Amino acid sequence: MFTIFFLFALVFSGSHEAVQGYCVADLGAAQTTTGYLCKPAKSVKIEDFSTTLQPQNTNFSKAFNISISPAFVGQIPGLNGLGFAAAKLDLFAGGIVPLHSHPDASEMLLVTDGKITAGFISPDNTVFVKTITKGDVMVLPQGLLHFQLNSGEGSATAFLAFSSPNPSAQFVDVALFASALDSAFVTKTTYISPAEVKRLKGVFGGQG
Amino acid sequence: MFTIFFLFALVFSGSHEAVQGYCVADLGAAQTTTGYLCKPAKSVKIEDFSTTLQPQNTNFSKAFNISISPAFVGQIPGLNGLGFAAAKLDLFAGGIVPLHSHPDASEMLLVTDGKITAGFISPDNTVFVKTITKGDVMVLPQGLLHFQLNSGEGSATAFLAFSSPNPSAQFVDVALFASALDSAFVTKTTYISPAEVKRLKGVFGGQG
Amino acid sequence: MFTIFFLFALVFSGSHEAVQGYCVADLGAAQTTTGYLCKPAKSVKIEDFSTTLQPQNTNFSKAFNISISPAFVGQIPGLNGLGFAAAKLDLFAGGIVPLHSHPDASEMLLVTDGKITAGFISPDNTVFVKTITKGDVMVLPQGLLHFQLNSGEGSATAFLAFSSPNPSAQFVDVALFASALDSAFVTKTTYISPAEVKRLKGVFGGQG
Amino acid sequence: MFTIFFLFALVFSGSHEAVQGYCVADLGAAQTTTGYLCKPAKSVKIEDFSTTLQPQNTNFSKAFNISISPAFVGQIPGLNGLGFAAAKLDLFAGGIVPLHSHPDASEMLLVTDGKITAGFISPDNTVFVKTITKGDVMVLPQGLLHFQLNSGEGSATAFLAFSSPNPSAQFVDVALFASALDSAFVTKTTYISPAEVKRLKGVFGGQG
Amino acid sequence: MFTIFFLFALVFSGSHEAVQGYCVADLGAAQTTTGYLCKPAKSVKIEDFSTTLQPQNTNFSKAFNISISPAFVGQIPGLNGLGFAAAKLDLFAGGIVPLHSHPDASEMLLVTDGKITAGFISPDNTVFVKTITKGDVMVLPQGLLHFQLNSGEGSATAFLAFSSPNPSAQFVDVALFASALDSAFVTKTTYISPAEVKRLKGVFGGQG
Amino acid sequence: MFTIFFLFALVFSGSHEAVQGYCVADLGAAQTTTGYLCKPAKSVKIEDFSTTLQPQNTNFSKAFNISISPAFVGQIPGLNGLGFAAAKLDLFAGGIVPLHSHPDASEMLLVTDGKITAGFISPDNTVFVKTITKGDVMVLPQGLLHFQLNSGEGSATAFLAFSSPNPSAQFVDVALFASALDSAFVTKTTYISPAEVKRLKGVFGGQG
Repeated sequence: MFTIFFLFALVFSGSHEAVQGYCVADLGAAQTTTGYLCKPAKSVKIEDFSTTLQPQNTNFSKAFNISISPAFVGQIPGLNGLGFAAAKLDLFAGGIVPLHSHPDASEMLLVTDGKITAGFISPDNTVFVKTITKGDVMVLPQGLLHFQLNSGEGSATAFLAFSSPNPSAQFVDVALFASALDSAFVTKTTYISPAEVKRLKGVFGGQG
Repeated sequence: MFTIFFLFALVFSGSHEAVQGYCVADLGAAQTTTGYLCKPAKSVKIEDFSTTLQPQNTNFSKAFNISISPAFVGQIPGLNGLGFAAAKLDLFAGGIVPLHSHPDASEMLLVTDGKITAGFISPDNTVFVKTITKGDVMVLPQGLLHFQLNSGEGSATAFLAFSSPNPSAQFVDVALFASALDSAFVTKTTYISPAEVKRLKGVFGGQG
Repeated sequence: MFTIFFLFALVFSGSHEAVQGYCVADLGAAQTTTGYLCKPAKSVKIEDFSTTLQPQNTNFSKAFNISISPAFVGQIPGLNGLGFAAAKLDLFAGGIVPLHSHPDASEMLLVTDGKITAGFISPDNTVFVKTITKGDVMVLPQGLLHFQLNSGEGSATAFLAFSSPNPSAQFVDVALFASALDSAFVTKTTYISPAEVKRLKGVFGGQG
Repeated sequence: MFTIFFLFALVFSGSHEAVQGYCVADLGAAQTTTGYLCKPAKSVKIEDFSTTLQPQNTNFSKAFNISISPAFVGQIPGLNGLGFAAAKLDLFAGGIVPLHSHPDASEMLLVTDGKITAGFISPDNTVFVKTITKGDVMVLPQGLLHFQLNSGEGSATAFLAFSSPNPSAQFVDVALFASALDSAFVTKTTYISPAEVKRLKGVFGGQG
Repeated sequence: MFTIFFLFALVFSGSHEAVQGYCVADLGAAQTTTGYLCKPAKSVKIEDFSTTLQPQNTNFSKAFNISISPAFVGQIPGLNGLGFAAAKLDLFAGGIVPLHSHPDASEMLLVTDGKITAGFISPDNTVFVKTITKGDVMVLPQGLLHFQLNSGEGSATAFLAFSSPNPSAQFVDVALFASALDSAFVTKTTYISPAEVKRLKGVFGGQG
Repeated sequence: MFTIFFLFALVFSGSHEAVQGYCVADLGAAQTTTGYLCKPAKSVKIEDFSTTLQPQNTNFSKAFNISISPAFVGQIPGLNGLGFAAAKLDLFAGGIVPLHSHPDASEMLLVTDGKITAGFISPDNTVFVKTITKGDVMVLPQGLLHFQLNSGEGSATAFLAFSSPNPSAQFVDVALFASALDSAFVTKTTYISPAEVKRLKGVFGGQG
């Protein structure tokens, strides 16, 4: 009957170089208010859409006995503009993800192993805390203070989903006690005693 | 010093009944173009933010030797308006998720067990196929035709994330061969032969 | 009374070079997740906001006896960021727009001449098919499989509107039979027989 | 092999009554900031996705010798939430669409017959005017003052697309001279002379 | 010449009762993920678009020697869906707005009187603190921990703008020490000593 | 116990150079459909988030006896992508902000001094006019024609908030009488008499 050499899809393109259907991040280029600039269509490859989870162990995660393996836009450039990301969270015995919020993303927690107690506080100051185990799922809405801690005997593991390809995080202790924020401001705006602020600045290595 | 009885948070509320920080779905009420109407703030409880994964086994999933356990807004009303959802996918031996697309969501696949071959075709007709195993992640952009199949020996399992709290799915075979779409239209618009359409209408139980 | 030399509008501008009110695509520059970078304000001209419809005839459109004349961002750079586009569709005698979806846009069809049968299948597998003539309008929601075919005697013409300035399209046959997708995957994920897949790979010129 | 009675699509639904893939407007129910509430899935029918263009002739359109046939959400409830709409515009001999803006939509004009002069003024006060004929397309960005007038001998016709399913319009003359806006305010805020304001209030039937 | 009785605007309306151009909140009705349902067009009046600032003094604001007068959607229903709100903030001598974040809004501060020291900490843990006086403006990005304190002699006043019509707020001390969050969790997830937690629970009136 | 040298926040970053939590405008670089490109994270400083209000006096503002001091993205690059901006408006004795609209922003007016009469006209042609004084707030929805005038004895001052970091403005008189728009088009599309158009073109210095 007929053979098609030039695809119809091209009719739908502003230019033959145009990116359509996705916008793979050019991680080395400038960012916009909605993500990264796109790589040219011709340089997109399968590796842009996949990764292998790798723990990003830092002194921080060691200190809290946890490990986080992100699959964010930095690991999967094809996530750019798609509005979500994922990660694996390991909480070793006694591991804690301290009080924090994600200013630009909600989070889901799917437990695959062990026992995790997760909680968040709502703007009307209701406390939502639950201990979840294998097969349980919990959602932590955007911008709200929350925590996760290993409440079982051994290790615990969960998969995380985020509603941003590049979620940020703000840990209360890191912001207050590992930063250069003047100790006087910490006390004035949190009412934590000067002595306790001094102790915690020491623990977290903060200045000021 | 002082005791606070009435919380500052109330200053930020349009009315004492107003919902803020999240909008838990009232699953029995009307839907909007952006999700469900919100439950009143006072009836929100921890169960609205959590669930236990339950396989929703249907004849369809049995036929393809797979099992899907969703954590969508129907299972977690607190996901309403948050822009994402998750699920667990089991592919038993030989299991296949046939060719389909999600009109309103991108998808991520995090393999926890076994070997899965996943693929999608881009609008410029490039084929992106990869076989992934435990710890591997792959993203399948919104609206594009894709599939997953168990390419290992035993079962395979993956966690899924979606960029919608209520993702829909359209399976090509279900749309063409399990629906009431007239067989003549199927042939005219896909060039699949009338005999093959008839055979597949029989397999999938479609009319027309 | 008074004469105004410097316009008030400038008070509202971040810088005198800033673009405001629209963002005309710089088609040669990088893309973002939301469109193209903007041309500098001073180089914007009336031609950026207008075009003359030109059929983009390809082997594909010849094969299906159709012609598409787009007015997308590639033809009208001023559409960048405005969220819509248009086109003219000619279906010559027997012309068919085969089964496809637009991953990132809904479509409207306004018939100006002839008789067109258009249809889409919904996620709950309901078939919506209608034969429309001059003055009739039909909407095809984003991401859903649909088709159009000339069901009259002579030619048929319709104007199309899309809810994206740069809509992409994915044709089921093109994705399956004109691509490099392995024939074994096609059969496994669509249940179309190997013989029929081979025949259609031949027709559409696909590899694999 | 197998027959599928219950569709996979149902696995993807929060509830069996849930609407997915589109949100057909319940035109009699309340509106939200993003459109109308959705009709229940089971009451959606093909008529919700189609219409026949009907001129909505009013004294206004007669006065300006034009006719507008909308295909907005009021005519096609299935457009709800899809972000666009269309219409047919007839400009009879000497017909004029007076100076106006669409506060919530950009507009495209595709001429099918006759000769139309269309123009808009940008925020930096550049005038973009062009006379377009059959096959020409022009875009008029959101919120900017624009006009269309028949600059040919006979009638002229154009198809319009809008980037909103329910575009509103604000005509400068209607707002100033057909409303109850006090004539003193009109003069003070436009510098049009009191006599001319009085004359135009008479022409357009305004009070104040 | 002519008189217009029926306005053109109606041509642009889905129904004569349809709301267009704005969606005034029906504060007593259900909320959606994007705001309140709209009041019927015919019941909209000038009072829906205006208010007089009224301090909402609570024990909380008295305790911190501040006063907040909101102009949010609760006070101005016409703000519904418009994406912003405002308020007046008075910091009396020594007044403090303790450490908090707005999960769903950025904030601007325009000082009209006195001297205010405002600060926020970024996700990469940089401290941004500045003392601002009359005529100075500072922006505090969405979701980030921030504070304001009166650093002058007398009272200080600022106008606030928010990028949400109904911004919520989460105060770290209120969330930790005025809520029912178990003291053991507070210590485990913030490393504040049990004694200090006990003291602050007493000050803020929290349980647990 | 432990000291943290490398912050957890880095785990959440696509790359160590990535911007998170905000996107400070690189005012000298290209714009996108959603704002400016972001400055590199390491060059962000406190000055990017603050400014001092400065009147941008032009012949225009002198002519109308007003003064506008913007705090837009051009003055505060940190507003980029945050969705709002602010300004101070001074109306000296008899000062007028003539009839105009903001195509891409709603506006709020918070009066701090004097007496201001503000008004807007809705798409269904209802006039909303109110005289407001110190402590009063009024909202002017996006894209609708509105005006403000000093209706008191002395000066009047108001703070303005906008729902865009870079709001544009279109003044009816500037568009019609200070532009190059042909006088014949002005008369044809507004029905203002040729003599009055000529007079106003003279007043506003327009061509055509």
